[in-house]
Amino acid sequence: MTFKRKKISVIGSGFTGSTTAFLLAQKELGDVILVDIPQMENPAKGKALDMAEAGPVQGFDARVTGTANYEDTKESDLVIITAGIARKPGMSRDDLVQTNQKVMKSVTSEIVKYSPDTTIIVLTNPVDAMTYTVFKESGLPKERVIGQSGVLDSARFRTFVAQELNLSVKDITGFVLGGHGDDMVPLVRYSYAGGIPLETLISKERLDEIVDRTRKGGAEIVNLLGNGSAYYAPAASIVEMAEAIIKDQRRVLPAIAFLEGEYGMDGIYLGVPTIMGAGGIEKVIEIDLNEQEKAELNKSAESVKAVMKVLA
Amino acid sequence: MTFKRKKISVIGSGFTGSTTAFLLAQKELGDVILVDIPQMENPAKGKALDMAEAGPVQGFDARVTGTANYEDTKESDLVIITAGIARKPGMSRDDLVQTNQKVMKSVTSEIVKYSPDTTIIVLTNPVDAMTYTVFKESGLPKERVIGQSGVLDSARFRTFVAQELNLSVKDITGFVLGGHGDDMVPLVRYSYAGGIPLETLISKERLDEIVDRTRKGGAEIVNLLGNGSAYYAPAASIVEMAEAIIKDQRRVLPAIAFLEGEYGMDGIYLGVPTIMGAGGIEKVIEIDLNEQEKAELNKSAESVKAVMKVLA
Amino acid sequence: MTFKRKKISVIGSGFTGSTTAFLLAQKELGDVILVDIPQMENPAKGKALDMAEAGPVQGFDARVTGTANYEDTKESDLVIITAGIARKPGMSRDDLVQTNQKVMKSVTSEIVKYSPDTTIIVLTNPVDAMTYTVFKESGLPKERVIGQSGVLDSARFRTFVAQELNLSVKDITGFVLGGHGDDMVPLVRYSYAGGIPLETLISKERLDEIVDRTRKGGAEIVNLLGNGSAYYAPAASIVEMAEAIIKDQRRVLPAIAFLEGEYGMDGIYLGVPTIMGAGGIEKVIEIDLNEQEKAELNKSAESVKAVMKVLA
Amino acid sequence: MTFKRKKISVIGSGFTGSTTAFLLAQKELGDVILVDIPQMENPAKGKALDMAEAGPVQGFDARVTGTANYEDTKESDLVIITAGIARKPGMSRDDLVQTNQKVMKSVTSEIVKYSPDTTIIVLTNPVDAMTYTVFKESGLPKERVIGQSGVLDSARFRTFVAQELNLSVKDITGFVLGGHGDDMVPLVRYSYAGGIPLETLISKERLDEIVDRTRKGGAEIVNLLGNGSAYYAPAASIVEMAEAIIKDQRRVLPAIAFLEGEYGMDGIYLGVPTIMGAGGIEKVIEIDLNEQEKAELNKSAESVKAVMKVLA
Repeated sequence: MTFKRKKISVIGSGFTGSTTAFLLAQKELGDVILVDIPQMENPAKGKALDMAEAGPVQGFDARVTGTANYEDTKESDLVIITAGIARKPGMSRDDLVQTNQKVMKSVTSEIVKYSPDTTIIVLTNPVDAMTYTVFKESGLPKERVIGQSGVLDSARFRTFVAQELNLSVKDITGFVLGGHGDDMVPLVRYSYAGGIPLETLISKERLDEIVDRTRKGGAEIVNLLGNGSAYYAPAASIVEMAEAIIKDQRRVLPAIAFLEGEYGMDGIYLGVPTIMGAGGIEKVIEIDLNEQEKAELNKSAESVKAVMKVLA
Repeated sequence: MTFKRKKISVIGSGFTGSTTAFLLAQKELGDVILVDIPQMENPAKGKALDMAEAGPVQGFDARVTGTANYEDTKESDLVIITAGIARKPGMSRDDLVQTNQKVMKSVTSEIVKYSPDTTIIVLTNPVDAMTYTVFKESGLPKERVIGQSGVLDSARFRTFVAQELNLSVKDITGFVLGGHGDDMVPLVRYSYAGGIPLETLISKERLDEIVDRTRKGGAEIVNLLGNGSAYYAPAASIVEMAEAIIKDQRRVLPAIAFLEGEYGMDGIYLGVPTIMGAGGIEKVIEIDLNEQEKAELNKSAESVKAVMKVLA
Repeated sequence: MTFKRKKISVIGSGFTGSTTAFLLAQKELGDVILVDIPQMENPAKGKALDMAEAGPVQGFDARVTGTANYEDTKESDLVIITAGIARKPGMSRDDLVQTNQKVMKSVTSEIVKYSPDTTIIVLTNPVDAMTYTVFKESGLPKERVIGQSGVLDSARFRTFVAQELNLSVKDITGFVLGGHGDDMVPLVRYSYAGGIPLETLISKERLDEIVDRTRKGGAEIVNLLGNGSAYYAPAASIVEMAEAIIKDQRRVLPAIAFLEGEYGMDGIYLGVPTIMGAGGIEKVIEIDLNEQEKAELNKSAESVKAVMKVLA
Repeated sequence: MTFKRKKISVIGSGFTGSTTAFLLAQKELGDVILVDIPQMENPAKGKALDMAEAGPVQGFDARVTGTANYEDTKESDLVIITAGIARKPGMSRDDLVQTNQKVMKSVTSEIVKYSPDTTIIVLTNPVDAMTYTVFKESGLPKERVIGQSGVLDSARFRTFVAQELNLSVKDITGFVLGGHGDDMVPLVRYSYAGGIPLETLISKERLDEIVDRTRKGGAEIVNLLGNGSAYYAPAASIVEMAEAIIKDQRRVLPAIAFLEGEYGMDGIYLGVPTIMGAGGIEKVIEIDLNEQEKAELNKSAESVKAVMKVLA
């Protein structure tokens, strides 16, 4: 079966899940199974059919199917988890954590039942703790359970910088560590336009504003949409990670990885630079941090630990 | 200004409009203005920002902006209209027609105020009558006001055939005339798998079922989604037409064109094969029809005329 | 090793071989080994390095390496043979056949020594007989030894038709059977522009001229170049076949397949429509031929047999 | 003529010129005119036809034509000059300079005769002096006469670094200033893997070797090929510059620009970081250099001036 197509299951057929499925199909990275709960099976089937019908026009061959039956995910090469609820008004953070923890456990046990050797990328928030939950529940090796946040955070940072300088996004690189959102540790001194340090191109004041806007990048979209959260850039970010793994590209990508000693952390999932390839997270790259960066990373780790304490 | 980027305005920031904007940006066909009514301006801005933030990851450079101010569409090279309401339970067809006619008139007068020489593609349903409304309101030459339906209908047909034969969608061609949906005239004898007539590969009975499923392709998705209608394949279809025009590809694409004598029709917009390039619809291709096909096309034209009578 | 990259060996680093390697790398279909004889090892290495150096600019990740050592082809998933000599002035056809037969035998024994379960695509002329030689020498099942000619012939036909009608090549389909070059059997009645039969768009006289030009398409380039033969379109044609196999696309593509009863032929390799996917030639499609087409196909088969008699 | 296709003329149909034409066509950046001297008109036509015939297979629409008649280049939006001779054994540098200077003058006068407002990219060696010659002869503003060297040099550097670290080329950035080849000033401290300074990932000794190999990157290919020089990576580099201009991407790309005060230089063409967009070189970016870098850049400038003195 040398040329067997890859099989990718996307759990959760909401906006992020379905956009992820579509972008995977567009790139012909494999056949896609879009999974949701029984009540959402028909919408999942409808979205899957709709995107399959875009195939002849966009020129991609990919079977995309919707299902509520985990048997259909059997022998998935890669699984992407977008399922879970968003925080609603009046809901405490702890309620959110515990609800999504239950979702992760249930989803993960179904996944590994049918694909015991798969690789999993997690997007559900709070993503550090949810990735940890999936890791523990799955029994998979740490390098094959990965959380997404840094690709998205740096994409937002790069977008804002490109707009500030009126330059192509292709030439802007960004670098973030730590948790998602407020706990993000953006390393501006490792960020460039065409290789030129941003600090020499943008005033410190404006850079601080851009960093602040990046930290609140998710909330900015939530506030604009009024009802819902971002999905285009999150989906594109997951797909970049999926592509790095499926094509064994050994990309240097920020990801939420399980740390066992790196950066002085132990036993937690945290956003760090990694080498991503066929083996999942093939390496955590340790870079030099100055005192302020270390303090921010520690603060970020404390936040993750605080959330982990809420886990049942 | 030799290398000025194209400017494309997409009217309506719902699922189809926003997916269209995203696919245009992905292909770097130009900068995209996503326009909606004032109450929806913030969601339009949010979606635009979200897709712009996917740019660094997917590697595309395109400014995507949301607005409720038509001034921002000034000097658009191309305008795509997806605005309008969908038919709601209890709403008569005539109510739908008249409501969307008002939307088309209002939208079109704003468009041509700022882009008096543009080209317009219409997707709003009932699309034949709505394209006619935009044509009349705009004062643009007929070849530059175009409705979409055949690319989508044939995409669905091709998808079903590819699934039936377990073949690549790349090698299936389909051919439809007439109106959208029930009035569609699928020309199976002009449809092929790798150039081989489908009639020699699939039984008449199964082909009839596939044609029937194609006719009801929009409703199939509506029923599955429960709440909403298809948007991936419709957006992909519009973008294929937009690309044919922007890149002057002279594609052979089915489109809703204003007929003045072709196929024995006069003064109506109807789905026919066309040559699409820099000039919009550069030619309506007339093909030989047998008696049954003629009858079906006439029936389709009658349906369009019946809707046109409802126009205020 | 779920996500192991595919390994593709291209035998012969001349223009066609190296262009093939480059197009494979561009599409990130796998890592490419460019193989040539010891005297040409350095040029093969040089071309491989040059194309690898285009990777950062064009955005593709592919290891491309040149070698004269077949050990480096070990466990190739796919092998493409472009090696062999071109007919030189004063050389008899039989000399050409026997010289290239020796090359095929030698190359094939080396290939299967290191990749006993691979799939092979042959381009070397006379391609029908050379594919047969590789098939016999390799011991591989017939569906995994495939010759290229029809994709190229129909690409030329489609180009000429697109130029004649001033239409996009994307909407022109062509269909050829039989041998390469003079023995080509172009099925004009299975060829279309946007699904519309070419016979209704182009006069019979002009179509005959286009068919004739297609038959002589290789010679036309040879005459223009003065020194050498076509390589862009041949390489693109091989790569389309390779992609169909590697991505298991089940494309409908013309190819040189081993016939055992199909089209009334037995024991020869001849150009026929096929379904191409993970299994190589997954099926030979038999289509209805009229009397003239049958006669032309038989004539083409006779030519192939005449060449096969020359095989040592 | 809103949607008129761009017209790009490539002067010189050798390996670099023809590969450039092919890559432009693949990206559908415009229609391509491949120009050569009358004795090479037929080969130019043959190559153009061959690559056009790859269009249906690779899915691109682009008219590619060969000619020896500059009238066919009329109203080119962009012109790329690859014409000229390579240095032959026994030929002095001054002979090379003066021969190619004559070629540049002749070619340029023909170009601007038919396209007085075009933009020109020069690849012919010695590229700094040849770009200057074209600038003077054309009468075009300095921002629209651009030489290529830095994109290629940094592509080589990036390839070597990616191989050294076994990482994706997508995440390696490089930065070079100054002249092509030996006079190249590679700024290792502005070069990164995923944003991480290379100096922290690779030993100084190995980095020095990589820099040295980059400096001699052209010669490495020449030595391997035995007969001829690199063309894949050079062509890809030119096409990246062309795309930046045609799509108005405002890329940050190293290029040979005319300096009037920048970096303390005046009246010479030299490799510097630029912003490249619709206007050609829209800005020369001045970055801080340390003493050693300044010294190397000055040495590079001296080399350019020495060559310019040879200009007739």
